[in-house]
Amino acid sequence: MHAADALQAAIDRTRSLACVGLDPRPSLLPPVLVEAALRDHGDTAAAVAAAFTAFNRGLLDAIAGHCAAVKPQVACYEAYGPAGWQSLADTVAHARSLGIPVIIDAKRGDIGSTAEHYQQAFLGSAPGLRGSPVPGMCGDWLTINGYLGGDGVKPFLGAAGTGVFVLVKTSNPSSGDLQDLALGQGTVMDAMARLVAGWGAARRGSCGLSDVGAVVGATYPAQARHLRTLMPDTVFLVPGYGAQGGSAADALAGRRPDGRGVIVNSSRGIIAAWQAARTSDWAGAARAALDAMNKDLGGPGVGE
Amino acid sequence: MHAADALQAAIDRTRSLACVGLDPRPSLLPPVLVEAALRDHGDTAAAVAAAFTAFNRGLLDAIAGHCAAVKPQVACYEAYGPAGWQSLADTVAHARSLGIPVIIDAKRGDIGSTAEHYQQAFLGSAPGLRGSPVPGMCGDWLTINGYLGGDGVKPFLGAAGTGVFVLVKTSNPSSGDLQDLALGQGTVMDAMARLVAGWGAARRGSCGLSDVGAVVGATYPAQARHLRTLMPDTVFLVPGYGAQGGSAADALAGRRPDGRGVIVNSSRGIIAAWQAARTSDWAGAARAALDAMNKDLGGPGVGE
Repeated sequence: MHAADALQAAIDRTRSLACVGLDPRPSLLPPVLVEAALRDHGDTAAAVAAAFTAFNRGLLDAIAGHCAAVKPQVACYEAYGPAGWQSLADTVAHARSLGIPVIIDAKRGDIGSTAEHYQQAFLGSAPGLRGSPVPGMCGDWLTINGYLGGDGVKPFLGAAGTGVFVLVKTSNPSSGDLQDLALGQGTVMDAMARLVAGWGAARRGSCGLSDVGAVVGATYPAQARHLRTLMPDTVFLVPGYGAQGGSAADALAGRRPDGRGVIVNSSRGIIAAWQAARTSDWAGAARAALDAMNKDLGGPGVGE
Repeated sequence: MHAADALQAAIDRTRSLACVGLDPRPSLLPPVLVEAALRDHGDTAAAVAAAFTAFNRGLLDAIAGHCAAVKPQVACYEAYGPAGWQSLADTVAHARSLGIPVIIDAKRGDIGSTAEHYQQAFLGSAPGLRGSPVPGMCGDWLTINGYLGGDGVKPFLGAAGTGVFVLVKTSNPSSGDLQDLALGQGTVMDAMARLVAGWGAARRGSCGLSDVGAVVGATYPAQARHLRTLMPDTVFLVPGYGAQGGSAADALAGRRPDGRGVIVNSSRGIIAAWQAARTSDWAGAARAALDAMNKDLGGPGVGE
């Protein structure tokens, strides 16, 4: 299925616009998982990875059916080497087994054949020594960085059922260092938005949205409204809700008139909810936080 | 030692401005290594990774002392999952054991705590479950993408002896899609260059160069000369020499008046030289190609 259609189907099925960020860090892990991992693996990278995997499995089992997507942040796993990479792969596989669309947040960007290798790693498969395919992580979507222009983006497009989110306006305070600079017409982010709209123009699914999405931070709602005019058929992946300061209204500012085209990410607000709630039921706390987020966002229709 | 001083010392010691790109792909592997890997591991990702490691070890042993640096391209390894990641780590460790500065070409770019995790993965160490450090890959330099602005770059700065190369003008044909757009003053790449100069201004080593470098493609020599005026104390990592079409003069166009501040990458031209030379002595062919490249570039001084 076209990636945007599959994502829209997940939104419609779950009545949720939420994307749960799976960004595990040792400081966010429940003590019971830390102790088990130390017992099995000692104080090693393998222990961290095992605890991450157990944490994510519990979270995924608790949130499945109640979120539109999940978004593992690759950096959290890469910091723990091959063991961390395996934990990421296991997490993606478990999410897919539960039918949750997976957005791999890698923010990759490179040219030509190098971009192809990243595509293989996250969305496809790589050639083995005899040419037979070595499957990669098989995510549904990948975040990418378009600074290198079209030939850094095109290798990521086209594998059946996959899509990308291109960084357009990021949620961080200094995102304006480059993205807000004024060009002859509009800003750098406007130029990136026009490129994104162009790359996706011929790639719309039957839901009307393209599989070339955009990252548009919740912390800049006025820009999100403006960027929607430049990217009418683009799915916005919206970081910056909750912990980073964006409200539900901010996060939804870039919605299309028909209410479609936005999913909103929350990471720490969901996965570390057990800490704020002072409970040992970390999976239950994540589910409760997700339910609250879904209520705050108000469902997939306009004005619901 | 300050990363720019260590790199300059390697240039002076080897009399080379060459950076050898370690970008292995199954199609570039000598048959003898392919057969050995298939024998030991079957037709698996582990076989690809084992062949990559053996290939790189042979290359590194042949080129040590004759190049300024090496630059493994992370995408080539990530396409083969945890086994590929281990091959990358082993390659970095072997290069470091030979005293060769290692530039990890990952083009990472993310914000705040996420950028910290990438820093930990490639240049530092991550916290274990009890807070004791889990060492990362311990590269000397990392390529990064500055689209997210200062708070996507600063987490990468500061670990002793490490540095970054920020993408400013990339070597690919569509690099101009964004990078060449005209701002009120200059272009997007000029703005990135000014940011790079600013981030590095207080970070010069005793050689006068900063540990915040820039990627400036050999395929755009006029821009490289212009970018030098905006980044007088920045090391340029120059891709695009050879296979991508840049000549030695093109690649050196961004040199400082004192001849410093440029290293030139070649990947396929070195590591796949055995194919062009129709020899089974792949390590010897790489060394011969490197010698020819060093001669073509003319050594580290101006007019040598």
